[in-house]
Amino acid sequence: MTTASICTIGDEILIGQITDTNSAFISRALNKTGIKVVYMVSCSDSRKDILDTIKRCLRKSDIVITTGGLGPTKDDITKNALMALSGSKKMRRSRKQMEIIKNILSARKIEMLDINRMQADVPENCTVIPNKIGTAPIMQFHFQKEQFGRDNLLFSMPGVPFETERAVPDVIAAIQAHYKLDKIFHRTICTFGIAESVLSKMIENWEDSLPENLHLAYLPNPILGVRLRLSIYGTTQKEGEEELDRYSASLKQILGDAVYGEGETNPQTVAGELLLERNATISTAESCTGGYLAHLLTEIPGSSRYFWGSVVSYDNSVKINTLGVSPETIRKYGAVSSQCVRLMAEGVRKKLGTTYSISTSGIAGPSGGTPAKPVGTLWMAVSGPKGTVTATLVSKSTRKINIERFAASALDLFRRSLIAGKI
Amino acid sequence: MTTASICTIGDEILIGQITDTNSAFISRALNKTGIKVVYMVSCSDSRKDILDTIKRCLRKSDIVITTGGLGPTKDDITKNALMALSGSKKMRRSRKQMEIIKNILSARKIEMLDINRMQADVPENCTVIPNKIGTAPIMQFHFQKEQFGRDNLLFSMPGVPFETERAVPDVIAAIQAHYKLDKIFHRTICTFGIAESVLSKMIENWEDSLPENLHLAYLPNPILGVRLRLSIYGTTQKEGEEELDRYSASLKQILGDAVYGEGETNPQTVAGELLLERNATISTAESCTGGYLAHLLTEIPGSSRYFWGSVVSYDNSVKINTLGVSPETIRKYGAVSSQCVRLMAEGVRKKLGTTYSISTSGIAGPSGGTPAKPVGTLWMAVSGPKGTVTATLVSKSTRKINIERFAASALDLFRRSLIAGKI
Repeated sequence: MTTASICTIGDEILIGQITDTNSAFISRALNKTGIKVVYMVSCSDSRKDILDTIKRCLRKSDIVITTGGLGPTKDDITKNALMALSGSKKMRRSRKQMEIIKNILSARKIEMLDINRMQADVPENCTVIPNKIGTAPIMQFHFQKEQFGRDNLLFSMPGVPFETERAVPDVIAAIQAHYKLDKIFHRTICTFGIAESVLSKMIENWEDSLPENLHLAYLPNPILGVRLRLSIYGTTQKEGEEELDRYSASLKQILGDAVYGEGETNPQTVAGELLLERNATISTAESCTGGYLAHLLTEIPGSSRYFWGSVVSYDNSVKINTLGVSPETIRKYGAVSSQCVRLMAEGVRKKLGTTYSISTSGIAGPSGGTPAKPVGTLWMAVSGPKGTVTATLVSKSTRKINIERFAASALDLFRRSLIAGKI
Repeated sequence: MTTASICTIGDEILIGQITDTNSAFISRALNKTGIKVVYMVSCSDSRKDILDTIKRCLRKSDIVITTGGLGPTKDDITKNALMALSGSKKMRRSRKQMEIIKNILSARKIEMLDINRMQADVPENCTVIPNKIGTAPIMQFHFQKEQFGRDNLLFSMPGVPFETERAVPDVIAAIQAHYKLDKIFHRTICTFGIAESVLSKMIENWEDSLPENLHLAYLPNPILGVRLRLSIYGTTQKEGEEELDRYSASLKQILGDAVYGEGETNPQTVAGELLLERNATISTAESCTGGYLAHLLTEIPGSSRYFWGSVVSYDNSVKINTLGVSPETIRKYGAVSSQCVRLMAEGVRKKLGTTYSISTSGIAGPSGGTPAKPVGTLWMAVSGPKGTVTATLVSKSTRKINIERFAASALDLFRRSLIAGKI
């Protein structure tokens, strides 16, 4: 099986000032193409460290993809290290990349400086893959088996995540042109609302029945729930897909309505699909989620077809004046109550004129709460033509994760209630 | 200088199904303590890979911190690998962790299963650091210099980010009890609204004047702007801080009002501080940011003291009916216009009764837009007792990044306009 290493370059990674999202993105793309990522590593901006790390990667895997270390500013020395590694004697200027740099700078009304021009310079022994939306080009190097023991391709990509993401398909195409690739097949079953250990107990017998070449992994996440990933290596596409079909069907049977989807989906995408199928619209009324629920819904391109808006009623005055919650209800039951979220959901649905609505009110933390309603308590409601459903939960996590789990749980309540015909 | 490696364990990292945020978090904590992170690596869930990688880390650095591979389910084999590595003959059950597991499960009303109990089992040669908010304990191992060439400490932490984050201070305390530590000092100057290459040109002379032991790095981010990080190694605290004071003061002089803060801050924190200083309140009216601006503001604990709410007016009907934008304005200038965002900001400020307000309307993409208003166009407004200011920009990125940059740019317009006395 063709293998790859991913190497991120930059002190900012090692000192933790930025989180590396490129490696995960690149790895997903490589996996889908049938390349197994065997190694991920980060190194500092020092020339020696860059060279040592890249050489180690070249020995460990066929393909090496580096990100970072290519910005226009002075802390970047990757390009010079690559010049030495590839035995290039001098730099050459990529005409294609130079054109792109000119266009980007003129669109941003930024004057062209020498440091911008120098970004189009690459070691003479490399093939340039133009970076269509950024100034630093992607550099491709080929190493013969005599050099590091493998027929290696090395790609050096910029570190800015959206530039990397846009360029990955071009890199994949270059890889496919060079190697004859095997396949890996994955199937991911997405569940929400059941704890990992309970899930594990529920599917214990099923799991014991899996064949040797089928691997199961649990992937818990506050927004995505617990996803169960089945992987199969070393079969044909047909056999692999059939095997995955069979085992995922029996798995879904066991899990029932805890399963909200398969593959690269999420609760907000599923909510959107349910609304589009019904030609329906939705609004939200948010207290503790503070706009995050609306953000999840509007993260999806085209969500304007079904999402009309949200009233983020952080202050009780907004709950009362804009959503029509009675001051009486808040006084009697508190803002974090079944009664309040019911009025919020019904209020926003009426005010914005949507088919359905979702509301949240809770205590995201870190401080606040009472013994009866501790930090992490959420009340949520979903409302529609058939009625309103309310529910509660307690999430024992950080403010950030509590907000994420609150929003995703409200979306899941919407899905279950809608499918069950309760709203 | 005492050094550390961080090793994440799990196929889900290598296949890119999850993004590793633990390494950055742990690295920040280690750096602050004066430990230099020299190596970050990810390995698969295979026993051989785990052992090889941890051994390599032990040879490369004094401290090794692993995360992941400790869940209650069957894909976890880290603990057995650590048993072999530490020469432990058997497992022992940690009584402290067992108590915590009982409390967590009973609070979540989950039945105690064997797989839960087994989480309290650890190799006999390890010291347990209890995981106060999760079921898998932190395991600490000590290796004599004879084993891997260093006086090593190895910590195995769970992979769930909020559990890791909560346990890091306990791990740092154990490290401080064991080693005599040197110091690294960082200073980060946060700027917004100037492109990296322009910034670099602006500070070129200043940068050339930096002494050898002072390192500068550029950290661009859609929400945080371009942060400039100064690092100094190998001095006393007093000398290091004085040096950083001197150079950051001259840097801030050059950059003027593009600087919005220092260190671990962000535009939403700064906006909150400005509001608290003035005992003022704020509301938002959001179209293209879809609740993300409200989310950034409410991400900050205690934001309920100044943030009252948001009207997410995704559909024009909400702009008209709830915010009072005239249909005439939308017909004549479009929803993405200076005129519309002005009315949105003024409308939400009046409706929610806040001192200030911020509004956004734009085209986040990936589709939509016109030649005059391409994808990535944002109009934004900020309003207050002294008036309303509008501004526009074009962000050429993905939908996700455009939304992030839009929200952060609106917060930056608020900061600049407020400080300049325009609103």
